Amino acid sequence: MAKIAALSGFPEWLPAERLVEQHVIDVFREVAELHGFSGIETRAVEPLDQLLRKGEIDKEVYVLRRLHAEEEDREPSVGEDRSRTLGLHFDLTVPLARYVLEHQNDLAFPLRRFQIQKVWRGERPQDGRFREFYQADLDVVGQDTLPGHIEAEVAVVMAEVLERLPVPSFTVHANTRRLSEGFFRSLGFEDHTAVLRSLDKLPKIGADAVRELLIGEAGATPEQARACLDFASIRSRDASFAERVREIGGSGEMVEQGIADLTAVLERVEAAVPGVIMADLSIARGLDYYTGTVFETFVSGHESLGSVCSGGRYDSLAADNRHTYPGVGLSIGLSRLVSRLLSADLATATRSVPTCVLVSVPAEEHRHLSDAAARALRGRGIPCEVAPSAAKFGKQIRYADRRGIPFIWFPGLDGAADEVKDIRSGAQSAADAATWDPPAEDRHVRVLAADSDPGPLA
Amino acid sequence: MAKIAALSGFPEWLPAERLVEQHVIDVFREVAELHGFSGIETRAVEPLDQLLRKGEIDKEVYVLRRLHAEEEDREPSVGEDRSRTLGLHFDLTVPLARYVLEHQNDLAFPLRRFQIQKVWRGERPQDGRFREFYQADLDVVGQDTLPGHIEAEVAVVMAEVLERLPVPSFTVHANTRRLSEGFFRSLGFEDHTAVLRSLDKLPKIGADAVRELLIGEAGATPEQARACLDFASIRSRDASFAERVREIGGSGEMVEQGIADLTAVLERVEAAVPGVIMADLSIARGLDYYTGTVFETFVSGHESLGSVCSGGRYDSLAADNRHTYPGVGLSIGLSRLVSRLLSADLATATRSVPTCVLVSVPAEEHRHLSDAAARALRGRGIPCEVAPSAAKFGKQIRYADRRGIPFIWFPGLDGAADEVKDIRSGAQSAADAATWDPPAEDRHVRVLAADSDPGPLA
Repeated sequence: MAKIAALSGFPEWLPAERLVEQHVIDVFREVAELHGFSGIETRAVEPLDQLLRKGEIDKEVYVLRRLHAEEEDREPSVGEDRSRTLGLHFDLTVPLARYVLEHQNDLAFPLRRFQIQKVWRGERPQDGRFREFYQADLDVVGQDTLPGHIEAEVAVVMAEVLERLPVPSFTVHANTRRLSEGFFRSLGFEDHTAVLRSLDKLPKIGADAVRELLIGEAGATPEQARACLDFASIRSRDASFAERVREIGGSGEMVEQGIADLTAVLERVEAAVPGVIMADLSIARGLDYYTGTVFETFVSGHESLGSVCSGGRYDSLAADNRHTYPGVGLSIGLSRLVSRLLSADLATATRSVPTCVLVSVPAEEHRHLSDAAARALRGRGIPCEVAPSAAKFGKQIRYADRRGIPFIWFPGLDGAADEVKDIRSGAQSAADAATWDPPAEDRHVRVLAADSDPGPLA
Repeated sequence: MAKIAALSGFPEWLPAERLVEQHVIDVFREVAELHGFSGIETRAVEPLDQLLRKGEIDKEVYVLRRLHAEEEDREPSVGEDRSRTLGLHFDLTVPLARYVLEHQNDLAFPLRRFQIQKVWRGERPQDGRFREFYQADLDVVGQDTLPGHIEAEVAVVMAEVLERLPVPSFTVHANTRRLSEGFFRSLGFEDHTAVLRSLDKLPKIGADAVRELLIGEAGATPEQARACLDFASIRSRDASFAERVREIGGSGEMVEQGIADLTAVLERVEAAVPGVIMADLSIARGLDYYTGTVFETFVSGHESLGSVCSGGRYDSLAADNRHTYPGVGLSIGLSRLVSRLLSADLATATRSVPTCVLVSVPAEEHRHLSDAAARALRGRGIPCEVAPSAAKFGKQIRYADRRGIPFIWFPGLDGAADEVKDIRSGAQSAADAATWDPPAEDRHVRVLAADSDPGPLA
């Protein structure tokens, strides 16, 4: 048969690794639901013209074609109608916009929705980039209006998600478009987008190269360029960023409004999840549709991952001739994060299977006793399985041990009591399947963070 | 902008409907984990040659192409190497076979795995068939060997899943290949597959047409054809099917072995989940790879859905030059089932959002009080959200009411106590966010079955 090989860019987890991914998904969902967000899923495909609407063709859309398509279903040539060709979605924002417009009469606004689905991008699978990966999105979408305080709220939910995950300490970096634009305007720039575009490249090309861009492409004087770089270097955990902005020349109504907005975000996030939010005026988040607060999130010691959770305010997610839909959204690159949790040993499952108890089988003729014990345990929520064969007990114990199953159960024969053995300690005692309970921490497989503080070196 | 329209065959749920789908997924996972099955996911794509390996091209594979593919990535023409072209998986069995071979050195066998993922089939979206839908699979896969008692075990897990779902009463119909083959051989047929192929068409074309097929294509005499149809008409809740098989001419070692196997399945499933299993000797399940017990499941009153859960024993899921991987698997057509639960009003969510409490905002300047109350409630696991605006209380109550949120919280001002109101009863009382609890049945949104017994008609 054909050679079986991994496909580069399409990650797949072993059962114990999948437990970590499932845990991350569960935490995201639990926190989102605690905040009253509704989970939705959208179809994996969108018409090609919708996918290309924002000109993001460099995202390498995967186009679909039925292998045995009738003539009228074939993909169109250039210039033909792309509304009938389907492609796989490359994010969850384009589908959300379409979902909101399509179902607007059946949805209650503001819509609080989360969405955890795979997306596909035909990128070159290098630098840890995947062609298939989970995104986990959280958005609040209003009809025509959406209050500004939602911007902090969405950041709070994401911070709570990250705080419950087995990741080292993280920082949510926040900025607001209004402050940047106001500052650049107060310096005298007409085209603030050219400045933003240059500053957006700071992490990649560094300050010196950005200075050249500002002068060469945004038309800045050397003084203006220095002020822009000074602006982008401002970071603070509290409202002190405001004074610094004014010191280097920020003034006017737009700057003051931006300061007020960003200060409000800092205060609300700090009140809810202390110690994670930071004003960082270098955050630009591309240029396309953000209009208010923008966020990026970095994990301490794993800055090479880039931002693990990004987003912000956009004034027009979607629009038709009746309504405009503004929103605030954040997105976690979930597969990329899980991949790092696994490769850096930041998280592990306490065992490789859900099973808490392996019920042994003394002999095939007694399997019904094992089945009955397992049924009694399961009836009280204890995950268990019955040994696949009545092999020697040593072999049955190895079966459990290899999977990290902590307990093995021995059904009693001829009226003898059942017994249960803790494989780790070797302790064995009589037990009744109708009443025995494992220690609470052993009942379900858990995902644990690696000890992030190994203590002082000896 | 382009017209937004639903895509036929790609179902999408509103938030309240998605709660029903999510519930079905949760129940499947919970029961599978209780039985020690590991959840895995496989990538959505497989090489085209793998997808077409069993000649199931009528399943209408969707082929992928990158919109801006480099020359070497383009899809091959006829005759070219199909191992480099990718298609979307159309079931979870082909991917499982590949996953087992690819990861065999890292997996522990027998592998107990469940898998809940979307699959894609470019079928004509008629007769309620979807082009994108969830399948939920459960398989036990052995390395080289797999004991027969697993066949009943997998059926037990599926029966427990269905029993916990808001579906009307269901019946798991079981047969075994050995019994059918043995019976046809004992009648004198050389080619028992031709007989099976004919009988497989019974539900579609009826007994008279099958009789003609048996005589015309399987070479049966009228007496043999009658015996085959008699055989396929046998149904029993207990071992009494055996006597009937012998009466109409079944004999020999293979028949007796088939009777013993099927009797064992009936007894084990009956012991675990009483009242759902039935021997049904008409069950044929196609012809391709089943070798032992085969199952189909029908929901009472919804037989038009066809089998909602099917599968059985196969002796070679996959093989390489070292190992063969036999398995037992069952699969639920989850989207099709959910679609029926929704369209027939068999299940509904108790509210359309996860939120249990809407915390009202008396005025924007007091929003921090609302935030604090919400935080306290959430800290004790009560899903809540804060009103998006400090509108009049009547409007805030309508916000909750429209979503079915049962409680609204009023933060106390100037040292007054907070109050909470049950929107359904109108009852309102003082409450402390640090201690108040909603009734247990209101805390989380639940999915309820419609009353399946409306009681005697008046």
